[in-house]
Amino acid sequence: RPAHSRPRPVLGEDWIFLVLLGLTMALVSWCMDYASAKSLQVYKWMHGELQGNVLLQYLAWVTYPMVLIMFASLFCHLVAPQSIGSGIPELKTILRGVVLKEYLTLKAFVAKVIGLTAGLGSGMPVGKEGPFVHIASICAAVLSKIMSIFSGVYEVSRGLTKTPTTKDLLVCACAVGVATCFAAPVGGVLFSIEVTSTYFAVRNYWRGYFAATFSAFIFRVLSVWNKDAVTITALFRTNFRMEFPFDLQELPAFAIIGISCGFLGAFFVFLNRQVVLVMRRQTALTRFLTKHRLIYPAVVTLVIATLTFPPGFGQFMAGELMPRECITSLFDNFTWTKIWGSPPPPGLGRSAVWLHPQVNVFIILLLFFVMKFWMSAVSTTMPIPSGAFMPVFILGAAFGRLVGEIMATLFPNGILFDGIVYRILPGGYAVIGAAAMTGAVTHTVSTAVICFELTGQISHILPMMVAVILANMVAQGLQPSLYDSIIQVKK
Amino acid sequence: RPAHSRPRPVLGEDWIFLVLLGLTMALVSWCMDYASAKSLQVYKWMHGELQGNVLLQYLAWVTYPMVLIMFASLFCHLVAPQSIGSGIPELKTILRGVVLKEYLTLKAFVAKVIGLTAGLGSGMPVGKEGPFVHIASICAAVLSKIMSIFSGVYEVSRGLTKTPTTKDLLVCACAVGVATCFAAPVGGVLFSIEVTSTYFAVRNYWRGYFAATFSAFIFRVLSVWNKDAVTITALFRTNFRMEFPFDLQELPAFAIIGISCGFLGAFFVFLNRQVVLVMRRQTALTRFLTKHRLIYPAVVTLVIATLTFPPGFGQFMAGELMPRECITSLFDNFTWTKIWGSPPPPGLGRSAVWLHPQVNVFIILLLFFVMKFWMSAVSTTMPIPSGAFMPVFILGAAFGRLVGEIMATLFPNGILFDGIVYRILPGGYAVIGAAAMTGAVTHTVSTAVICFELTGQISHILPMMVAVILANMVAQGLQPSLYDSIIQVKK
Repeated sequence: RPAHSRPRPVLGEDWIFLVLLGLTMALVSWCMDYASAKSLQVYKWMHGELQGNVLLQYLAWVTYPMVLIMFASLFCHLVAPQSIGSGIPELKTILRGVVLKEYLTLKAFVAKVIGLTAGLGSGMPVGKEGPFVHIASICAAVLSKIMSIFSGVYEVSRGLTKTPTTKDLLVCACAVGVATCFAAPVGGVLFSIEVTSTYFAVRNYWRGYFAATFSAFIFRVLSVWNKDAVTITALFRTNFRMEFPFDLQELPAFAIIGISCGFLGAFFVFLNRQVVLVMRRQTALTRFLTKHRLIYPAVVTLVIATLTFPPGFGQFMAGELMPRECITSLFDNFTWTKIWGSPPPPGLGRSAVWLHPQVNVFIILLLFFVMKFWMSAVSTTMPIPSGAFMPVFILGAAFGRLVGEIMATLFPNGILFDGIVYRILPGGYAVIGAAAMTGAVTHTVSTAVICFELTGQISHILPMMVAVILANMVAQGLQPSLYDSIIQVKK
Repeated sequence: RPAHSRPRPVLGEDWIFLVLLGLTMALVSWCMDYASAKSLQVYKWMHGELQGNVLLQYLAWVTYPMVLIMFASLFCHLVAPQSIGSGIPELKTILRGVVLKEYLTLKAFVAKVIGLTAGLGSGMPVGKEGPFVHIASICAAVLSKIMSIFSGVYEVSRGLTKTPTTKDLLVCACAVGVATCFAAPVGGVLFSIEVTSTYFAVRNYWRGYFAATFSAFIFRVLSVWNKDAVTITALFRTNFRMEFPFDLQELPAFAIIGISCGFLGAFFVFLNRQVVLVMRRQTALTRFLTKHRLIYPAVVTLVIATLTFPPGFGQFMAGELMPRECITSLFDNFTWTKIWGSPPPPGLGRSAVWLHPQVNVFIILLLFFVMKFWMSAVSTTMPIPSGAFMPVFILGAAFGRLVGEIMATLFPNGILFDGIVYRILPGGYAVIGAAAMTGAVTHTVSTAVICFELTGQISHILPMMVAVILANMVAQGLQPSLYDSIIQVKK
């Protein structure tokens, strides 16, 4: 077959399919974000209203996520147990040629969407990416079925049914899933390449690009339309100075972040697997938990919510911050060690939570990292739809921030270059840490690209890519990726 | 074969090969940039010194590029005629399984490097990307041969010789070539995927990423070391405002740029092919030109240099600007229609050339675009190593800038949003135009990513991707890509 040898349209006949897929997923993603944001608003509003009565406040803080997580767990169990977990391991399995039963049904779609929204709305450290890839896959499968009903009329799905498996379709869906989750079309396409284990069909590159761009575009336009954003920008936009983002002398610190994140990422995968394995072992406890399915997620949520309770231990680990707030505050432009103790500067916003009046910033960051580390590893094992990308991203950001703040303390006056003193940007370190950590856990390098698209800044591209590659090299030598780990455990 | 099923190192044994490839290519790229920049400095210095004597000035302006281009043409003809042209069409042919003789020899390497440096140093509209991909391919082939000599000792090239063809090696080389040319590792990897027509081996993704990042990194570090840049940043860094890069109401203009660039790109491919076909036809003229090989490039250079002569017609088309200066000035942050006629603001720099005291900015831009359009289409047919990417990139930037300046005139007060008036950024339009035009000519979408990495700003990601996809859809329906067009003509 001569490929590309003469002018031919990019997408063949399936552009309608791709547009519909993009449109649906953008709508689903936006509605989900909207609903979970509203839910978190209610959660925080309750917490604020009950100020003064610590006991009631605690009860509200603990009950709200417990109810949501238990609902998600119950709903998924009753409607479609296939919807539990991330979705990427299953997609990888399907792409390797294994047929997973009932994985791509409308029932799983409903369960996953509702369950994920409830999970995200609870403020627990659960991610959206993995489940979203699953949702996109189902959406693609269902859409292609609907289209094939019309095939006599439109013949739109011909290009898709030509292929022996539904592989092409799922690869595009993967790109769309990531793109609508993070408004990251390029990252989505790259991620879909990395997920396709061996050979990537270049025709899917075009399709993926088209669908991912379209869906990310609609996803962001919906935000503008809803006045969440003034224009189409990145989801977690950073505002680092561009003329001199970092100095070459800071590179060793970036390399250290990369290597450390490699080890930490591998440890995360190990910890996550150990939790699953312990839960699998046949003991009296696990038999009891299997019988009473809601107890495990309820207890996990109870413990996590108790520890993050802001007037309690939560004050030492910025427990008040919801996942998205964590990211925006960790990526901010302030040097916390500098402003700690002095009156908060204007524009500090939610980052003020990190500045405890008595406790040092380093301790807060370290406690946050250690606590969130096991919390994320455990909470992703709950029987609800949940990904690990976002929690790990936050962990990496916290670790990077920690290194950045240490660097800012070591070089309080910044770095002298060409007669001008450039201050160290701990936020930049946080971005690099986030990319390196997610790269290590998922064994992908496209996380760096997703990171640029999430922050809307590409100034740290080269150090970030170096850190991600180092993290990958370390992590790949130590542990399988989180997805492969889950596949192995589930076998 | 179970892929990725257990922890294994990313790169296998060939990381030494990839490091060496990256290192070599970064050095070659940097030396070439250095030499051609020096050559252009001499050119401009001569032009400046002869101020006052227009005749001598004209002679110098015309002779200098003629000598360089004729030297390049002669050198390539004598050393290795395979080194003439871009290199990407040939690479695509090899990747499709055709064996091209003497394409990957050290002789071709020397000819291509010397010829390209001379071509770039002449200020003619010739590009670096295509030839650089060729240079990287040769470098990879030669390196792997050298490594295989040591194979008994190191066995480093085992991972490479395992594969039936040298395809894997060339795909990585392609990524490295683009990465070292533009300091664009992600764009390089994506470009290498698009060049591999049908199935892309995911293992090359890792290799490409590693080698491309490493080489781009070294390439930029060399600049810092040479004090060209203060730190590692993008090659053509832009400085657009980030908080509100564009408004949704500007989207139709971006879409128009995309569609128009699709048509213009297709026309560029058509024009380029027509020039080649006319030169191929057996007439008295072409027989004469084939006999006296240096006459064609000399005449082309003479005509182009005469037309761009700054005190002559060149003043109406910013003829004074060398290719790289064109890009930086077209991407600048000023609105030329606003500052035209008033005293130049501080920091205007080389952009001042676009502001003719008597002639309107629109006319200058339009003349530049029309003249450079045919100049680029013709000069890429000269028998020297030359790519079309950069010339087309400049054309697109000029077209985008033109649309941007028109928009800025139509909405002189900018766009009102949320009580704040945001001015239109014509530089942003230029970036979008550049990406769309190169995308249309090369039939790739990775140009958008290369564009982000070149400018170091990702704020326009979504409109740019939309424009690039639209341009691709139009162009792919009308003409083959420039590379395929060349392949067809050469058959």
